[in-house]
Amino acid sequence: MNNPAAVYRGDGRFEIVDEPVTAPGPGEVRLEIAFCGICGTDLHAYLGHMDARIGDQRVLGHEMAGTVVEVGEGVADHHCGDRVVVRPLDNCGDCPACNNDLSHICHNLKFMGIDTDGALKRFWTVPAKLLHALPDKLSLAAAALVEPTAVAVHDVRRARLKAGECALVIGGGPIGTLIALTAKAEGADVILSEINPTRIRMANAMGLDAVNPLETDVVSLINERTGNKGADVVFEVSGSQPGVDLMTEVAATRGRIVMVAIHASRPLVDLFRFFWRELELIGARVYEPEDFDRALDLLGSGAIDVDAIITDQQPLERIGDAFVSLTGNAEALKTLITITPGE
Amino acid sequence: MNNPAAVYRGDGRFEIVDEPVTAPGPGEVRLEIAFCGICGTDLHAYLGHMDARIGDQRVLGHEMAGTVVEVGEGVADHHCGDRVVVRPLDNCGDCPACNNDLSHICHNLKFMGIDTDGALKRFWTVPAKLLHALPDKLSLAAAALVEPTAVAVHDVRRARLKAGECALVIGGGPIGTLIALTAKAEGADVILSEINPTRIRMANAMGLDAVNPLETDVVSLINERTGNKGADVVFEVSGSQPGVDLMTEVAATRGRIVMVAIHASRPLVDLFRFFWRELELIGARVYEPEDFDRALDLLGSGAIDVDAIITDQQPLERIGDAFVSLTGNAEALKTLITITPGE
Repeated sequence: MNNPAAVYRGDGRFEIVDEPVTAPGPGEVRLEIAFCGICGTDLHAYLGHMDARIGDQRVLGHEMAGTVVEVGEGVADHHCGDRVVVRPLDNCGDCPACNNDLSHICHNLKFMGIDTDGALKRFWTVPAKLLHALPDKLSLAAAALVEPTAVAVHDVRRARLKAGECALVIGGGPIGTLIALTAKAEGADVILSEINPTRIRMANAMGLDAVNPLETDVVSLINERTGNKGADVVFEVSGSQPGVDLMTEVAATRGRIVMVAIHASRPLVDLFRFFWRELELIGARVYEPEDFDRALDLLGSGAIDVDAIITDQQPLERIGDAFVSLTGNAEALKTLITITPGE
Repeated sequence: MNNPAAVYRGDGRFEIVDEPVTAPGPGEVRLEIAFCGICGTDLHAYLGHMDARIGDQRVLGHEMAGTVVEVGEGVADHHCGDRVVVRPLDNCGDCPACNNDLSHICHNLKFMGIDTDGALKRFWTVPAKLLHALPDKLSLAAAALVEPTAVAVHDVRRARLKAGECALVIGGGPIGTLIALTAKAEGADVILSEINPTRIRMANAMGLDAVNPLETDVVSLINERTGNKGADVVFEVSGSQPGVDLMTEVAATRGRIVMVAIHASRPLVDLFRFFWRELELIGARVYEPEDFDRALDLLGSGAIDVDAIITDQQPLERIGDAFVSLTGNAEALKTLITITPGE
């Protein structure tokens, strides 16, 4: 096959098809994908939770790294051979969000790899304006983690986190772990709360301070560490009612709580505590270009080492097996699909 | 009686007693109270909801205006005859909040008139540092509204409201009405959502744009007025589940929602919407000194006219009747107790 692509057919089934290669139009580039990570959203898609949005002809994948192999008319800043990642957001350009410098959360946002075809194929043709060049030291495999790291960077930036502050991350999946690593790299005193013993072990092995809230009273722990102040910043990444209970209980007066998790149903929230301690809740979704830049800095400089987060690699042909082994597997953090690794 | 005081005995009962007059100690002043408003919190106390906190020997009252009649040692800035209001917050000075310039929400805050004796009496001796002098043009009766106006000013300031923004106030009691008037005075396009027809009529008579959410689709109304952007700022003052539902539905992308209401039980909150639109929820409680200063400016300059908010005046001896007629009475906004009106 010249351009193998993993098409999601619905009902947990992928089909590898040979897609026609799309030449880049004006302002576009054609990339050869090296690696593509599987995201929690992809897993939701695989489990059929997003069938109505996705349909049965979609190429998923948005956590990619690859190389420019063909450049369209008018693209001056990128050349064949450039190693790049793509910021996979396609905004409408004419809604109240786009008109207020919030194009990353455009009212009509198309998320590439969900709403349009993504990177789980050999060749992907995309607008050049979405590219970010890789630093020399960053491997293509590690660069596949730039996109989720940009999510974490955006969350930390929305929190207005300052060095020396105490941050609690509730939930130690891939995004929670990356938030904890990012917050630590920014100089915060970080505690990660996670109920799964395997994930706690993995986080501790990465140098994080992870605790199990079923065994440790997290509020007391943080009050001890902060002279009864509480956590300056809380990241709610668990999507659970106990996580939502903890976030308000542990936050300091004027503490900032960042809502990272996708709460599919409405939890009960202690709004009295928001009033009483003048708490802030700050929603955070995807990223802006500067978040990609900062993520590239953090990974390129080695301030964050994502190798320990990559717990599996599978070739494109085995994509179905990769999803099977990720499902309900707390020992897995990030699976990379290798497409044209080339190095 | 030389110093009549209304002592709350619990169980909805007040007793007027003659209290000894307390001479001001160093740094203190003795005030003669002209007017004292009845606050929603006082009504909660009267209804027995706060008996454990308040006991049966408390003089309530914190929305006051009066005159300095005796000055203690070391008080240089205030003199007999000065017309003043009191910022009724007694902070501990040594907790994580006090140590972080947040003394107004001190972890051990004593709210004067609830946790210590208040202003429902002729003479009240207080620390001079809590005084704010009245502008010449402001009557003592209107000045009794400075304290709740300072609440509204604090809420508007926490919202970072800018002129020209669209603000929705959910709930048209005294505080909601004052927030709407303050937001309008600051140049916002304000809509007040209130379910009670009498309160809607009163708000409209004050020049506000009040609508009934049971009759008007508030989300559609605001989307029409903002080109589908939504409300830049929402003040949740209703303390109700429908109010909490509306606040997330109506807010613009990156909209700021200020939590003013005291939610005694935890409502269901659409946290997905916080993620999706990057909303902010901002808790706001009482006020800081600058909020009193701004409230005095707004009332003193006539930018806010509070006369229409004063719906009843009763002498101290009739305080029990005043509370009876306030209870469950949506036609009442603010009742003033006249103590030594003197003008």
